Formats: sequence, structure tokens, C-alpha cells
Amino acid sequence: MFEQLGLIGCGLMGGSFALALKKAGLVKQVVGYSKSPSTTSRARQMGVIDIEAPSALLAVSGADIVLLAVPVAATEATFKSIKHLISPTTLVMDVGSTKRDVVDAARRALREQVGSFVPAHPITGKEVSGVEFADALLYSGKNVILTPIERTLTKQLSQAVDVWTALGCNVLQMSPESHDATFAAVSHLPHLIAFAMMHGLVSQPQGQEYLALAGPGFRDFTRIAASDPHMWRDILLANKEELLAQSQIFQRTLQAMEAMITSNNIDGLTGMLEHASDSRADWSMASLKPKT
Amino acid sequence: MFEQLGLIGCGLMGGSFALALKKAGLVKQVVGYSKSPSTTSRARQMGVIDIEAPSALLAVSGADIVLLAVPVAATEATFKSIKHLISPTTLVMDVGSTKRDVVDAARRALREQVGSFVPAHPITGKEVSGVEFADALLYSGKNVILTPIERTLTKQLSQAVDVWTALGCNVLQMSPESHDATFAAVSHLPHLIAFAMMHGLVSQPQGQEYLALAGPGFRDFTRIAASDPHMWRDILLANKEELLAQSQIFQRTLQAMEAMITSNNIDGLTGMLEHASDSRADWSMASLKPKT
Repeated sequence: MFEQLGLIGCGLMGGSFALALKKAGLVKQVVGYSKSPSTTSRARQMGVIDIEAPSALLAVSGADIVLLAVPVAATEATFKSIKHLISPTTLVMDVGSTKRDVVDAARRALREQVGSFVPAHPITGKEVSGVEFADALLYSGKNVILTPIERTLTKQLSQAVDVWTALGCNVLQMSPESHDATFAAVSHLPHLIAFAMMHGLVSQPQGQEYLALAGPGFRDFTRIAASDPHMWRDILLANKEELLAQSQIFQRTLQAMEAMITSNNIDGLTGMLEHASDSRADWSMASLKPKT
Repeated sequence: MFEQLGLIGCGLMGGSFALALKKAGLVKQVVGYSKSPSTTSRARQMGVIDIEAPSALLAVSGADIVLLAVPVAATEATFKSIKHLISPTTLVMDVGSTKRDVVDAARRALREQVGSFVPAHPITGKEVSGVEFADALLYSGKNVILTPIERTLTKQLSQAVDVWTALGCNVLQMSPESHDATFAAVSHLPHLIAFAMMHGLVSQPQGQEYLALAGPGFRDFTRIAASDPHMWRDILLANKEELLAQSQIFQRTLQAMEAMITSNNIDGLTGMLEHASDSRADWSMASLKPKT
């Protein structure tokens, strides 16, 4: 049970965390700050936060648990602005989709207080953003990945495990490097591909006519292309090395299939399609297992 | 109202058509044939068809409406085998995902009877196949595209429009060429990309570990990669020119985004992501309008 959550960033992820923490009875009071005052006041009107803070620092004042839910590119500046009120007893977490850059920013900005920070990445989200879509159940039943470093304090790490577990999450731990390699492959590349496919489609003279006839397969395949472009710009740039490496593997595979189509290599193409289809058919989110 | 449906291919698409026709009270009897006798008998046991035919020709015998629901690659051989029982009063349709190749096959195989054939492509399906998944509502509320040629008989064309309309479909008409260009862009390329992405992912040493941490975005993005690999091999090969042209547009766009990521071109990348995100957010299947 925490006395006060200091919420920095009252959007979809931050707002949903505050609602979930309240729903679980894990916090008495939520003090929130957003870069845009209108977001902060909407969050209070919606009951997502109890008190509006005029700055990130004042949102942290008196908080025993702090959540950064800001674009990954804003992480270091935010850490710098709240460093003075982080103590060895504060639990500080983020919800960023990349981890190496966040950990590096924490080392630089938090210095001797970096041990209070437990990097976290809940594997959830929506293709919409904003506090309007905050949902107390956004994290329930989802994986959350913690990427502690050698300087992370064990008390904060066990508190972080307890909090996410209490919100109904399956808590996993891995290194920031393994995290970023994994999500370049299963999240960042799919988003880049979906954005590129949509852009290439609608940039054609007949793009809108084609689009008007797209069906259910297209709907699901491109759903993530509607994601927040600014959030994803930051993610794609923050994890560019792993992302571009995955994109190369994808393009080599695509071009191998194109060559088989061009040369009517029926057996080769069948084999690749069967491998892909069987792999996807065998996969299910329910099969999620802790990885280290 | 039809006396008898001759169903050739009792799988997901054919079986669902028979069930829908029965449900709508549009046919008195369904005679079915499948290449695999076990499929045909399962279809009869399930009540999808009433009578098992030992050959495609015998399935057509006495039928005033015929549906080919076979892999596109089997279309020409099937037309040849039933040609002798197709009369100027028979309505013959298919459900193939490509149309130029089907129309060419019909011209070659049906000859003077080609006027009885109305090429049809219902924009629906499942990532599973087989008569076990036949669903009387599979076509309800979906688009169906008819691609008549100059030799198509108007009586059969109007019958085809009436049948699909009675099944709850929104009936559109376009040329086989426009159809294939459209679906290369919004269906065949997304499937090729999803197959390639899955294959590239699971072919990596750590592919299974990565896969175990994939989330909801990945689930929807790759759903179509579980589609029937043999059906899709035929589709990708049948529409290769349009497909490869769309794949080139996609890869140029992807590589332009990669270059912006590499060079930290924040404004350029933001612009492309915003264009893609806005285009997808503005799109909805409900916005489907007839195209010619």
C-alpha cells in the first residue's frame, strides 16, 4: 500500500496505471502532472488523478511511488527535473517501450539515485492515445517486463514485482539489451512495416479506391499503423540498431519469396509459406513464459 | 429460387455458401463434390450438402446454379471437367481471390459456354480452412466483387447480383484487371508481408524466445500469416505482376523510412508516420463504396 502516486504524464498509459492502482486499493492519493495543463485538468475531472501538480517536481513531492509515462525522448529531462525529490525509499518506474535508452538516461540524470528506478515495459496499449481512453483494466492479464540493472535496489525491485502482480500482470525480468532486441523483432518492426505499407498504399494515385475495398485481413494487419506517430517516431529512433537489423532479416526473407514467385519455384514458396503459417498457427499469447 | 446447387469444393468458402443459400431458402437441394471423399462425406454428415457426388461433373448434373470453390490453380481443370453439362441457363460462379487468371481459364475451358460464368470474389474468409469451419453467416455484411466480361450473359449477371444480395452482401462490379490490381495492394501484399515477417522471425536463433513475448499488436498484425499456405501460394503466383509491383512500392517506402531513421531525420520520419497513421485512422470498412 502506497501513500501517494506521483504521476508524470496523464495519458493512456499513465492514466490507466493510476486507475488500476486505485481500483486495487494500492494508493491513497494520486498527484498528477502533464506537459499540457488541459490534460492534467481533464485527468482530475475524470478522477484519474486527485490533485493537479504544476510541475513534474511537485508531482513527485511527497510521493512514495512515481510513474513516468512520458514519451521515451522526454525521459532524461523528466528524470533531471525530479532527481532532487527521489530518495532511496522512493519507487520510480517508467512504462517505456524501449529500455536501453531509458536506462542510460536514468544513469546520467538520476546519478546516485538510479537505484530507486525500476525500468518497466508493460506489453499493452491501444492504437488510440490520451487520458480519455484510460482504462483500469489496460494492464490486467498482460506481461510486464522489468529490466533492472546492477545498481537497482532489491527493495524497489520487489516492490515493483508486487505492484504489477497486484494489477494482474505476469511479471518477467530481462536485461535492457535482451528487451530491446526482442521488441525490435515482435513490436517495433511490425509497426514500421505497417506504417510503411499504409503510406505506400495511400500515396498511390488509386490508393483511396484500393483502400475502399480492403477487408477484415487488412483491417487487422494495419490496426497498429493507426498508432501515435510521435510516440512511435521516438521508439523507432531509440531502438534503431536492433530495428534496422530486424528489418534487414525481414527484407531478405521477403525478397527470397519474391524470387520464388518470379521463377515459379512452387516447392520453395510452398515450404516458406507452410513454415510461416505453421509457426503463426502454433503461437498464442497464452503461451507466454518468463524469459531471462 | 434455385432447384439444385452443384457445389464443387466443400471447404470453408463452398460449405459456407451452401449453408447460406439453404438458410436464405434459395435452394432446394445441394449436390456436392470435393477432391477428397472424406471432405465430401463430412460435408454431408454436417448437413452442408444433401448428396455426395463422385465427380465434379456429376455434381453439376441437374444443377441450375454451380459454385466452384476450389484452389484458383484448379479452376481450369474443373471448368474442363464440367463444361459438357453447363447450359446457357446455368449460373456458374467461383469465389477465387484472383480474377484475371480465372477469367482466362474460363475462356479457354468453357468456350461458348463462358457466358454462363459470373466471376465472383467475396471479400471474406478465415485464417482457418475446411468444412468444419463452414459458417452460414460468413458472407453476411461483406462485399462481393463481380468481374463480368463482355461475353457474360445479362441474365446470369443479374441472377448473381440477386443471389449475393440475398445473402446479405454488398455487390460491386469491376473489371478483372482492376480487381487484381486492387487486391494485390490491399490483400495479396499484406499476406506476403505477414508470411515473410513470420518466417524471418522464427528462422532466427532466438526467434522462439522473441515470439514468446509478442503482444496484442503482433497478434493482429500476423493473424493472416496463419492462412492456408497452399491457397495463398496459388494466389501469390496467379497475381504475381501486380503483387510484385505493390511489393516494390512498399519496399521503397520502407527503405525511405529506414534512411530517415538512420540519419535521424526527425521531421521527415514524423511526416511519413503521421500520414500513415492518419490514413489508417480515417479508414473503416464501413466506408466501403461501390467501385467500377
